Amino acid sequence: MRMFEKPLGMRDTLPSLYTSKRDVRDDMVKEIERWGYDMLATPTLEFYETVGVQSAILESQLFKLLDQQGQTLVLRPDMTAPIARVAASQLYKKMGPLRLAYGANVFRAQHHEGGRPAEFEQVGIELIGDGTTSADAEVIAIMVSTLQSVGLTHFKISIGHMQFIQALFEEILGNKERSTELMQFLYEKNVVGYREHVKSLPLSQIDKDRLLRVLTLRGGIEKAEEAMEIVDSEKGKRALVELQNLWKQLEAFQVESFVKLELNTVQHMSYYTGILFEVYAANVGSPVGNGGRYDELLRKFDCSAPATGFAIRLDRLLLALGKMGTTVRKYGIIFSEEQRMEAFEEAKKLRQDGKIVVLQNITGVPNVDQFVQEFEEVMYFLGKPRKEREK
Amino acid sequence: MRMFEKPLGMRDTLPSLYTSKRDVRDDMVKEIERWGYDMLATPTLEFYETVGVQSAILESQLFKLLDQQGQTLVLRPDMTAPIARVAASQLYKKMGPLRLAYGANVFRAQHHEGGRPAEFEQVGIELIGDGTTSADAEVIAIMVSTLQSVGLTHFKISIGHMQFIQALFEEILGNKERSTELMQFLYEKNVVGYREHVKSLPLSQIDKDRLLRVLTLRGGIEKAEEAMEIVDSEKGKRALVELQNLWKQLEAFQVESFVKLELNTVQHMSYYTGILFEVYAANVGSPVGNGGRYDELLRKFDCSAPATGFAIRLDRLLLALGKMGTTVRKYGIIFSEEQRMEAFEEAKKLRQDGKIVVLQNITGVPNVDQFVQEFEEVMYFLGKPRKEREK
Repeated sequence: MRMFEKPLGMRDTLPSLYTSKRDVRDDMVKEIERWGYDMLATPTLEFYETVGVQSAILESQLFKLLDQQGQTLVLRPDMTAPIARVAASQLYKKMGPLRLAYGANVFRAQHHEGGRPAEFEQVGIELIGDGTTSADAEVIAIMVSTLQSVGLTHFKISIGHMQFIQALFEEILGNKERSTELMQFLYEKNVVGYREHVKSLPLSQIDKDRLLRVLTLRGGIEKAEEAMEIVDSEKGKRALVELQNLWKQLEAFQVESFVKLELNTVQHMSYYTGILFEVYAANVGSPVGNGGRYDELLRKFDCSAPATGFAIRLDRLLLALGKMGTTVRKYGIIFSEEQRMEAFEEAKKLRQDGKIVVLQNITGVPNVDQFVQEFEEVMYFLGKPRKEREK
Repeated sequence: MRMFEKPLGMRDTLPSLYTSKRDVRDDMVKEIERWGYDMLATPTLEFYETVGVQSAILESQLFKLLDQQGQTLVLRPDMTAPIARVAASQLYKKMGPLRLAYGANVFRAQHHEGGRPAEFEQVGIELIGDGTTSADAEVIAIMVSTLQSVGLTHFKISIGHMQFIQALFEEILGNKERSTELMQFLYEKNVVGYREHVKSLPLSQIDKDRLLRVLTLRGGIEKAEEAMEIVDSEKGKRALVELQNLWKQLEAFQVESFVKLELNTVQHMSYYTGILFEVYAANVGSPVGNGGRYDELLRKFDCSAPATGFAIRLDRLLLALGKMGTTVRKYGIIFSEEQRMEAFEEAKKLRQDGKIVVLQNITGVPNVDQFVQEFEEVMYFLGKPRKEREK
């Protein structure tokens, strides 16, 4: 093993990327805070038994370790479960909605070289305790304004509803196992597999057509009306009415041009319970962010409260923005012992003027010509000070 | 196990502390950047074999885990070793000093309930490639200005020199084992144990007195002159001259009132190689920060370069500043469906004016009177809009 190798999927963030990342994160957080959300932080390590099993992440993607007491810990795979833990145990007091936000690294173990990052930063919000569609609309509106605040212009949020798909599948397929099996294809966005699977099912042609029409329910809010034709149950129709209600509110927020219905959108099945969404940006294949309603999670932490939220992946957002590095303008002051005081004074003055100033003793530099190349401007304070020389 | 327990030493950072912490960190980083230091980030997980064994942290304090390939990983116990890895492998090009900085969480496994945090944030710098005393002075001057930038006024930096202590001990005790044994007492700041141990050694009274005088070498730069009397070797005297030289530079930086010599200061013995220091603040028992020269570390990453730096512990600094929480002023807008548009408009306007505004549908709140208590000002947009009512 080379002495400077890093674990699989682990990456360094060198200065120029660090600066871009920070600028984007800070702008996003500032916008989120304008909506009254409070930032908080949770530990990197959590108990597997509590946060680990409640997270929406595959078991095989968890980084696990044993603590000194022999209990299994995980590196947090997402922030939603830890925030649900904090909200349930300390913050949520049933007097009304809680608005929380975070910017934090999360961890997903990787299994192949050159693949996805095993540690990446998410910026997100959680709106806990409000079960109305207003909460879903607010979360989507904030996602739009957060992305706009960093200059992203070409993006689209696909909105679906877990209960519409669940209701439709239950009506047609009868039991949960068959529904889950079919839903897996949508989860993996495997359209071909979905079609093949539907064709192979022992169903009437009418029911097969209903299932295949799910793939075409993509577009404006008129698709909700269309979807009414293929779903019969109260649960399914209620989900569609909720989407229509949501749409009106998104119009009131003036963000309707950034959204579209995609009724085949599904996510982690045991987690999301209602309206859910994914955001795609031009030139980035994977979603830049996602979110939705998870009304059952807080119950796992002994606190019954509805909740919704979103998470944006900073690495993918930077890719979408094409911001892969920022160069900082610096002044260089090269000095020798004799003019130390003069050099220090000049550096102090420039810094007070808001300049970034590197102060460097010339005896510490092997190659001055190369060293000064990084600077916008270089000043030399070498040899005897002028006044003394004039004597 | 309660469902919202956290692993030993792991803490949540709730919103008001989060905000204080962020304000302090941001100010520190801003000051550090004025000196031309570039921020960077490294992964939370590193190989035990590389960064793990090179860190200055006790083996028993490392959080270890196995990756999918069966290799041992550690949660980074400090940032100096990871930055040395990055500098050695990617950044340091022998054309001159490299100035790097970070703000990052580090991890130290704890063994007792109610003890120290197992995860805490450090803000620090590393100046790599400059072996001159100017580099040591710069690092200390930046530490002072960084602490001042966040409003800390009562603090003192104790400065020592590893080579002075090593030289003195080697002269008197003859071999490394005996030196290490005695140094352990200084490392643990166990003055009583040190005295007892010195008394028990088979040495002349003169030599015992020389060892005991180490404890009294605390004060201004005149202590370096005093120390000349008890050390004979070239190495020991050279260390003292270096301290005198350092002092002059600290005077040029106008930070001499924040420093004192403490020649009994030692730290991790296999790590620090020269001038080293600790900063203490009024009312905080443990050091708020520390640092020093580590000229051997980069060699472990196949790159020969001198280096020095410091790290400040954010949790202890907040304690010293007495900043344990910041409350954010928020506006609340409570609306009902009928006045949604008006409410949204008002929220937008206030946010554009830089206000923080929570927008809340009244049907999502069980107890409005309690809910609105957190707001600076509350506006209600309920019932039919005024214009309609006037018709």
